[in-house]
Amino acid sequence: MTGTVYGVGLGPGEPDLMSAKALKLLARARHVAFFRKKGRTGRARTLAGELVPADAVEFAMEYPLTTEVPLEDPRYNRTLAEFYDGCTAHLAAIAGGGEDVVVLCEGDPFFYGSFMHLHERLITRVPVEVVPGIPGMAAAWTASGVPIAWGDDVLSVLMGTLDEDVLVRHMESADALVVMKVGRNLFRVRAALERAGRAQDAWVIECAAMADQKVTRLADVPESHVPPYFTIVLVHGQGRRP
Amino acid sequence: MTGTVYGVGLGPGEPDLMSAKALKLLARARHVAFFRKKGRTGRARTLAGELVPADAVEFAMEYPLTTEVPLEDPRYNRTLAEFYDGCTAHLAAIAGGGEDVVVLCEGDPFFYGSFMHLHERLITRVPVEVVPGIPGMAAAWTASGVPIAWGDDVLSVLMGTLDEDVLVRHMESADALVVMKVGRNLFRVRAALERAGRAQDAWVIECAAMADQKVTRLADVPESHVPPYFTIVLVHGQGRRP
Repeated sequence: MTGTVYGVGLGPGEPDLMSAKALKLLARARHVAFFRKKGRTGRARTLAGELVPADAVEFAMEYPLTTEVPLEDPRYNRTLAEFYDGCTAHLAAIAGGGEDVVVLCEGDPFFYGSFMHLHERLITRVPVEVVPGIPGMAAAWTASGVPIAWGDDVLSVLMGTLDEDVLVRHMESADALVVMKVGRNLFRVRAALERAGRAQDAWVIECAAMADQKVTRLADVPESHVPPYFTIVLVHGQGRRP
Repeated sequence: MTGTVYGVGLGPGEPDLMSAKALKLLARARHVAFFRKKGRTGRARTLAGELVPADAVEFAMEYPLTTEVPLEDPRYNRTLAEFYDGCTAHLAAIAGGGEDVVVLCEGDPFFYGSFMHLHERLITRVPVEVVPGIPGMAAAWTASGVPIAWGDDVLSVLMGTLDEDVLVRHMESADALVVMKVGRNLFRVRAALERAGRAQDAWVIECAAMADQKVTRLADVPESHVPPYFTIVLVHGQGRRP
């Protein structure tokens, strides 16, 4: 019997926002795996906390690099590909030995998640099952207290790492906006929102659904402020409402 | 003591994908409210099933119209506004009497949900709390077995009710696409995808995370097929992957 690798979405941060399915899989897990930066506990592992059984075997997958090598450098792709290949081999070996593994994923596994890099390598080798989760952006718009999109609103999800011109083009054409991976890109996101005439309607949500959640109008965020990487910027749609 | 109106996201359809928080609120609910078409059980009520306590007081909010009056007709907005006003008065009265009410919401309450029309009317009158849920689109891309967006992909969420030219413009400029409210608009969505050169990569997901889930390539869906209203069309992003 071959085991299954479960990519389990844990949602945005509040343990109570995990699905019943995620909680069941965690409770019976004998192997759990998770990504983390070197020297950190890891956000997904922190989120799972004591829901991981004390006797589960833990496999920390430590990113070999984050920002030391620029994205454009061929070494970046090569190093990461080798890293994902290694993680895949380890998880496939556990499943091949007949055991299930739960891979802890923040938010939703198939929505800009690192698990996707394991998924595409694993599916040809062992059974893989994905459990969706509440994406971080849903926690962000819930925290803002205002619905994100109405009626026929077009919602665009943008990464703060995009070129400013690309950001501006999409910010001009969509009704509602979600900008992820903001962090130290906030200055560029702000500049793009200003050029698109949307800055006055933008909100900055730090640590949505977590203890240190912070909701601020962009206009009230100092130019020099560098929010956490997973900060989300929102512009709410204003579509049809009777 | 004033009660609270809870807008509770129940997720995409599979009860196991409800959050722990939603399950707790349902289990202790004394009043539940939900939208439905006249003469139907209602999707949200069906989803909650026997999780609604047998002795809870149920308030079915029946849409006064669906497609009999065109959106452009002033009667449409007027009739719906009166309907939402009436529902709001009823819910505010329950909360005013010191009792909590759980409003059952499919997917996520703040993501194109009918609850938003109650929310904006209620917030000035009684305490309102929103519990996010897994949106239907996350169940759709999970069902497709392929991640929706990678790296710097731009994801646009479009309604099948939009004009064809608007659809084409966004389909050309985004990397990943989610088209909601497809149903009898599938012919227009297909035409727009073809004009944008994206039709060959599109998938049609009917009833994601439900018993009758169906995943089909758009190319294999007959021209004459009219899928359910909540069908979702996806085009997956092809962004950076080491």
